[in-house]
Amino acid sequence: MAVATLDVEQLTELGRQLRVDAVRAAAAAGSGHPTSSMSAADLMAVLLGRHLRYDFAETQNPDNDHLILSKGHASPLLYAMYVAAGAISDEELLTYRTAGSRLEGHPTPQLPWVDVATGSLGQGLPIGVGLAISGRHLERRGYRVWVLCGDSELAEGSMWEAFEHAGHAGLGNLVAIVDVNRLGQRGPTRHGWDTQAYARRIGSFGWHTIEIDGHDIDQIDRAYAEAIGTSRPTAILARTRKGSGVEAVEDKEGQHGKPVPDSEAAIAELGGRRSIRVEVAAPDGEPERLRPDTGSLRLPVYEQGDEVATRTAFGEALAALGEARSDVVALDGEVGDSTRSRYFEEVRPERFIQCYIAEQQMVAAAVGLQVRGWTPYVSTFAAFLSRAADFLRMATVSGARLCVVGSHAGVSIGPDGPSQMGLEDLAFFRALWRSTVLYPCDANQAAHLTAAMADLSGISYLRTTRGETPVLYGPTESFPVGGSKVLRSSPGDRLTIVAAGVTVHEALAAADRLADLGMAVRVIDLYSVKPVDVATLHRAAAETGHVLTVEDHWPQGGLGDAVFDAFTRVTCVPRLAKLGVLAMPGSASPAEQRQHAGIDSTAIVEAAHELLLDS
Amino acid sequence: MAVATLDVEQLTELGRQLRVDAVRAAAAAGSGHPTSSMSAADLMAVLLGRHLRYDFAETQNPDNDHLILSKGHASPLLYAMYVAAGAISDEELLTYRTAGSRLEGHPTPQLPWVDVATGSLGQGLPIGVGLAISGRHLERRGYRVWVLCGDSELAEGSMWEAFEHAGHAGLGNLVAIVDVNRLGQRGPTRHGWDTQAYARRIGSFGWHTIEIDGHDIDQIDRAYAEAIGTSRPTAILARTRKGSGVEAVEDKEGQHGKPVPDSEAAIAELGGRRSIRVEVAAPDGEPERLRPDTGSLRLPVYEQGDEVATRTAFGEALAALGEARSDVVALDGEVGDSTRSRYFEEVRPERFIQCYIAEQQMVAAAVGLQVRGWTPYVSTFAAFLSRAADFLRMATVSGARLCVVGSHAGVSIGPDGPSQMGLEDLAFFRALWRSTVLYPCDANQAAHLTAAMADLSGISYLRTTRGETPVLYGPTESFPVGGSKVLRSSPGDRLTIVAAGVTVHEALAAADRLADLGMAVRVIDLYSVKPVDVATLHRAAAETGHVLTVEDHWPQGGLGDAVFDAFTRVTCVPRLAKLGVLAMPGSASPAEQRQHAGIDSTAIVEAAHELLLDS
Repeated sequence: MAVATLDVEQLTELGRQLRVDAVRAAAAAGSGHPTSSMSAADLMAVLLGRHLRYDFAETQNPDNDHLILSKGHASPLLYAMYVAAGAISDEELLTYRTAGSRLEGHPTPQLPWVDVATGSLGQGLPIGVGLAISGRHLERRGYRVWVLCGDSELAEGSMWEAFEHAGHAGLGNLVAIVDVNRLGQRGPTRHGWDTQAYARRIGSFGWHTIEIDGHDIDQIDRAYAEAIGTSRPTAILARTRKGSGVEAVEDKEGQHGKPVPDSEAAIAELGGRRSIRVEVAAPDGEPERLRPDTGSLRLPVYEQGDEVATRTAFGEALAALGEARSDVVALDGEVGDSTRSRYFEEVRPERFIQCYIAEQQMVAAAVGLQVRGWTPYVSTFAAFLSRAADFLRMATVSGARLCVVGSHAGVSIGPDGPSQMGLEDLAFFRALWRSTVLYPCDANQAAHLTAAMADLSGISYLRTTRGETPVLYGPTESFPVGGSKVLRSSPGDRLTIVAAGVTVHEALAAADRLADLGMAVRVIDLYSVKPVDVATLHRAAAETGHVLTVEDHWPQGGLGDAVFDAFTRVTCVPRLAKLGVLAMPGSASPAEQRQHAGIDSTAIVEAAHELLLDS
Repeated sequence: MAVATLDVEQLTELGRQLRVDAVRAAAAAGSGHPTSSMSAADLMAVLLGRHLRYDFAETQNPDNDHLILSKGHASPLLYAMYVAAGAISDEELLTYRTAGSRLEGHPTPQLPWVDVATGSLGQGLPIGVGLAISGRHLERRGYRVWVLCGDSELAEGSMWEAFEHAGHAGLGNLVAIVDVNRLGQRGPTRHGWDTQAYARRIGSFGWHTIEIDGHDIDQIDRAYAEAIGTSRPTAILARTRKGSGVEAVEDKEGQHGKPVPDSEAAIAELGGRRSIRVEVAAPDGEPERLRPDTGSLRLPVYEQGDEVATRTAFGEALAALGEARSDVVALDGEVGDSTRSRYFEEVRPERFIQCYIAEQQMVAAAVGLQVRGWTPYVSTFAAFLSRAADFLRMATVSGARLCVVGSHAGVSIGPDGPSQMGLEDLAFFRALWRSTVLYPCDANQAAHLTAAMADLSGISYLRTTRGETPVLYGPTESFPVGGSKVLRSSPGDRLTIVAAGVTVHEALAAADRLADLGMAVRVIDLYSVKPVDVATLHRAAAETGHVLTVEDHWPQGGLGDAVFDAFTRVTCVPRLAKLGVLAMPGSASPAEQRQHAGIDSTAIVEAAHELLLDS
C-alpha cells in the first residue's frame, strides 16, 4: 500500500503490530526492552508510515533521511519497524539477541540501516547534530534527521550540548522525538510526565517544541508535519505510557528491561499478530553523490635542526590536507589557538566546525559526519578528550572512522599544571578496539602521520607536544603506521631505549652521555604506539638483551605496556624496565617537570646504569 | 578594617588591587591568565569584602563558606584574593607557577583554602552541587557555596547536569557567578554578551537568575544579597570585560592566557600597587563538627558453592556499610536496580543520592561530598563510568577519596551487547594516579573488598559481574588490598594462570581439565589488580616458568599488563602470554561471549598447551 494512503486506523494498527513484534522478539530472546519499545510504537508507526523518506532498496541513497534510536534499548521497536518495511523477515526478528544475529541487544551498524551504535544514553541526539550539520551546512541536501530519544536520557549533559549546538546553528532538518514515558530503569524520572518542564528547557535553547499525546495518531502526525515545516530544530515531547497496550505492564514500575510476563496473553490483548507491510517513501529525484576531491597534498616541510612544536606541524599539515582533500573537515572545542587547528580554519573556514567547549558534542558530531563520508579531524587538549571517553568508546562499536588529535600531552606542557596535562591518554586510546595510536617526536614526522590518519580505519589518535622540539627527520622520510625508527645503533649496544614524542629527545641526550661513558645503547623512536613494531623490538632485544622504555605518561597502559606486550609468547624475554611519570606534577618549566617526573635524560642514564650493573 | 564597613570606593580599590596583583603574578611567571582574572576582579572584590563567610585562621571550620573557581585558569585572581585576605604573602604570590610553589597554574588543594582542583572547565559547578547537597540535605548547615564560572564553560554539558540537579533539588545555598567576558581562548563565545540567552536557559532549569554589569560594585553587591535571600539556587550573569582596566588588553581578542604586554604600564594604568587587607568575616557561632559513627559492621555472608553475583554482594555489603557507618553515602546514575546500589537506598534513603543518568554530575557530587568528610560510593555500569572519565582524572588531582563501583563488566553480561560492556575500565582506572583497582570473583570477596574501599585513600575502583558465580571463599577469609589468592598449587606446576573476577572460574575449570591431561598448573586469583601482589607472582613465575593471564577486558591496559609490569627490572623474566577479548562482541549468552572472546576455559587450555609445547 502506498504510504500517503495509510489512514489513522491503519497507523493505529501498525502501532499495534510494532508492539506485538517487540513483545515477540523479547519473548523469543528471553530478555530485552519491550516496554520501552511499546511506549514509542505509535510515534514510530506514524513516522514510518507517513513522514520518513528512506529507500530501503538503496541504503546508500544520499538523500535518505536518517533515523537514530538514541534510546537504543528500544531496539525491538526498531527491528519491528524493519519487519514492517520489509527489510528483514519475521524469522530474522526472532533471532533477536542470539549469537550471530545482526539484531543485537542495542542497534549497531551491522545492520545496513543503522548509522551508528547506540545504547549508551545521550549519544544519539549529539550524533544526529553531526548528520544535520552535514545536510544543512556542508552538503546542502534535503534529508531530515529524526532522533528517537528517551526522557531519562535528557539528564545527560551531552543532550544539552546537542540542544545548544543545534539551536544556535539553526538545524531545521533535525527532529528530536522524546518518548516521555515517565519511567526509568528504577522508577520515575525526575520530571515524570511534565512535558512542559522539558519544553521550557529545550525551548530556551532555541528549539521549536511541541507537546503531544504520544498515543494520539493525529497529534503525532500533525507534530511531524509541523516539525518539517519549521526552520528551527524541533523537539516533540510526547507523553506516553511505558508498556502501552498491555495492562499487566502499562505504566507500571519494575517492568524495565525484561520480557512482558505473559507474552501470549499480551499479544492477544494487543489483538494478535499482524503483517502490515509499509511501502516507505523513498526520497524524490535522482541522488547526486558526494565526490570527494583528493587532490595532490603538499605537506609542510621543516628543516632538520630547527625547533618546531609537533602541534604546529599538525596544524599546518591539517591545513594542507584541507586544501588538498575536499572530504576533510575539522572540529574544534574552542582551543584551536592551542591545538593549532585554527590553521585549518584559516584556509577552509567552510569545513571548520566550532563546537565550543563541548567535547562530547564535538566527537559526536564527528561520528555523524563520517557517516556522511567526511573525514573528520577532532582536536583538543589530550586531557580534555577524556571528557568524550564514552563517545569514543561507542564510536568503536559504530566502526566509526575518526582522526583524533590530543595536544598538550604530558608533564612537558610545563607551568599550567596537571589539570591541563594528558597523562592517561595513551592508556585510554590503546584500549579502544582497533585503534591506532601515534606519537610523533618531530615536525616532519607529525606532518606525515597527520596525513596518514586520513586513510586509516577506526579511531586513530595523534598525540602532540606543546613545546618546540628539534626536527630530527628529513621531509622525505616515511613513517609507516606500525613502524619505528632506530636512531642510534651499533653492534656493541647493551641496552635499547624505547621512547616516543618528547622523550625521544631525552633518550638521544641520554645515549650521548652513555656513549661518553663508554656504554653503547640503541635508541628506538616508537612513533607508532599501536600497532607496535614487534620485529624491530624483538631484534633490538635479542641484540642488546635489555629494554628500557621512557614515556611522558603515567606508567600504566602507555608506551611501556605496549612494548612489554610485544614480548608475550616469545621464548627469550629481555630484561625490561619502564620509566613513566612518578608523582602528581605541579607547576614548573618543561625541563623541570621531566626531571621531577623521572623521565629526563638524567633519569634514563641512571636507569640504564642500574639495569646493566644489576644484571 | 571590618568587612561591613568596606564602602563602594574601597571595594572598587580592592578590585583594582586584585587586577594589579593578577598582572604582577603573571608577569613574574611569564605565563598565566591575567585577562581572565581582571574581568572577574570586581565580582570577587565584593564577594571577599562583603559576602563571603570564611575563617582563614580556621580552614577546617565546618561553617565556612566554599568558594570554587570553576574557571580555574583565573588562578591569579584567586591568589590575589588570598593576598588581600592575609592568607599568603606578596612574596609567595610572585612564586606563581614556579617549581615547588603552592600557587599552581590552576588551583589545587595544595592550598588549604582550595577544596578541589579545577582547570578542566565545567567541573566546578557540578562539584559545588555536591557541597550544596551536603549543606542543605545531609548536614543542614548554613554555609553557602559560591562558584565563579566562566561563560565559555557554559557550553559543557556537565554544567547543565549541575543546573538540572541543583534546580530540582532546590539548592538555595548555591550561587553561580558567571563572568560573561564574551571572549574565549580563540575568539568570541557563542553568545557573547547576551546574558539573557544564558538567563533564559538557566532560569528554565529552576534557577533564580540576575543579570548585572559585572563592573558595577553596587549591582554586584545587590545581586549577592538577593542570592542570599533566595530559596532557589541563583545564577548571577555578570557582563564583564576581559582584561578590564587596561586598555591594551581590555575586551581584545588574542589576549587569552598570557601576561599583559607591558605589565609596568598596566599596573600604572590601574593606579599602581595597593596593599588593602580585608578582614574576611568568619561564620558566626561555635562550629559543631560532623562526628561519623563507625559502628560495628556486619557484612553479608554467602555459603561456599552457592551462586551469587558479585554485584549483589556489593549491594548487600554497601547496605551493611550504610547501616554501620554514618559517613557512607551512595550515589546512583539511575541504574540502582542493576548495580544493586538500591539495597543501600532501602536501608539509608536519607544518604542515597539519585543523580539520574548524569554520570558527570554523579562523580562531581561525590567529589564535593568527600570534601565535607563523607565517604561516597558511586556506582553505575562500568562502561558508563567512562562518561565521567575527565571528572575522575581531575579527582586524582584533587586528591579526592572516592569509592567507585562499575557493574556489568566485560563480555560476560551476555546479550545486551557491546554498548553495555565495560571493556576498557581496568585500563582507565589503572592509569589514574594512586588508584586502587579491585576485581572480585565471588560474593564473600566482593563484600570484603566493598568494605575495604571505605578506608582507602584516593580513587578505589571495584569491578563487579552481572551474572552469578559460585562462592569460592569462606566468609571469614581475608582479602588485603595488594594481595592475591593461590587457588591451585602443586610442586610440579609448569604454568601459572593469573585471572580475576569471572575468569577465575574459567581458569579453575581449565586447571581441572589440564590436570586430567596430566598437566599441573597453578591458578592465582589476582583480585587486587592495582597494586598487584608482586611477591606471589614472582614466586609462581620462578616455580612454574610460564605465566598466562586471562581477563574479560580488551588485551590492553588491564590485568595482563598489570601482571607483565610486575616483571620489570627482574633478572629472570618468565615466558608470558595474555588472553583478552579478541574481537568486538555482539549479542550472545555469557558463556558464548567468553568463548567468542577467547577467554573461556577452552581457550585457556589451548593457550596453555601452545605455551608449554612451544617452549
